[in-house]
Amino acid sequence: MFNDKRIVLGSQSPRRSHLLEQMGIEFEIRTQDALEIFPEAMHPEDVPAYLSRLKAKELESTLKAQELLITADTVVIIDDQVVGKPQDAVEAFDMVKNLSNKVHKVVTGVTILDANSKSVSFSETTYVIFRRLSDADIKHYLHEYKPFDKAGAYGIQEWIGMIGIEKIDGCYYNVMGLPTSRLYLELNKFLTKEV
Amino acid sequence: MFNDKRIVLGSQSPRRSHLLEQMGIEFEIRTQDALEIFPEAMHPEDVPAYLSRLKAKELESTLKAQELLITADTVVIIDDQVVGKPQDAVEAFDMVKNLSNKVHKVVTGVTILDANSKSVSFSETTYVIFRRLSDADIKHYLHEYKPFDKAGAYGIQEWIGMIGIEKIDGCYYNVMGLPTSRLYLELNKFLTKEV
Repeated sequence: MFNDKRIVLGSQSPRRSHLLEQMGIEFEIRTQDALEIFPEAMHPEDVPAYLSRLKAKELESTLKAQELLITADTVVIIDDQVVGKPQDAVEAFDMVKNLSNKVHKVVTGVTILDANSKSVSFSETTYVIFRRLSDADIKHYLHEYKPFDKAGAYGIQEWIGMIGIEKIDGCYYNVMGLPTSRLYLELNKFLTKEV
Repeated sequence: MFNDKRIVLGSQSPRRSHLLEQMGIEFEIRTQDALEIFPEAMHPEDVPAYLSRLKAKELESTLKAQELLITADTVVIIDDQVVGKPQDAVEAFDMVKNLSNKVHKVVTGVTILDANSKSVSFSETTYVIFRRLSDADIKHYLHEYKPFDKAGAYGIQEWIGMIGIEKIDGCYYNVMGLPTSRLYLELNKFLTKEV
């Protein structure tokens, strides 16, 4: 699809793999632990693109001539605070409860990088509005789905998203971890534009 | 989940079945052909709820005491016109091409009906914004996915939705055929409220 480029996905997220597959893109997965630390004063919406660049930097030295790396980071922002992954079930309950009957933002930052150090970073924001969730519904969800690997402790494509999300404003797949249509656009631009 | 009620889905759509399953609802499928004809002067956004009521009427006589019927209809509206399913590949191409670089509405109407003729109908609207699609992308999609059973000739959950939809404003699952969180809310209301 993208000429002779070989796409490398620098992410362990099974959701991102699944999304890239559904986009019809062939890729291999290559990851390296990166410390997900960002400057305290950074605007929350700038954090994901920053972290995606950090992740790309960690893998830059492994890139071969025809390889094109995609890294991404997704955060949930509520009340101007970045919400990460829950440490345990109690924190997960509090996180989901805090999303109930409110709007929050999900921001995914993406970096595309090639072996010549040409790169582009961008991010997309999706607004998500949850209905009022009952404690029983939240407990049922946490028990059945154990969303401990997810920012904000929920997956939009899971039960809680189906019964609890009134509406979104933005890209749906962005909430799952990749702004797919923006990524498709940026990949095409990246490959047709000279540096 | 819904006390002693037995849910009956009055729809042949595999997407609706899949969505109800993901909502954790057990159900059986029961369908009867209904003529999907609506008054010409009807406001396009009122059409899906009207058609969902027609579909419910067709099945009303089959309902047993503990059964609860759910019927639905989904239409695509662009330039204030209801867009149905394409007749053939040429019409499908024109339909998708006409969605390119524009906003359109997807409206799903739902009727819930029990054996005592208690019923409720409602509908939800989702705004969908497509990026500019290339003819090559449209042809690729139609060839690979053959979306001839879908209003507007596309599925949001398919390739064209992933690479082509910039954003939506509303319920994602509504575009697939059921406004899942609204349905969950309405089912709970329906079952707790006396007539």
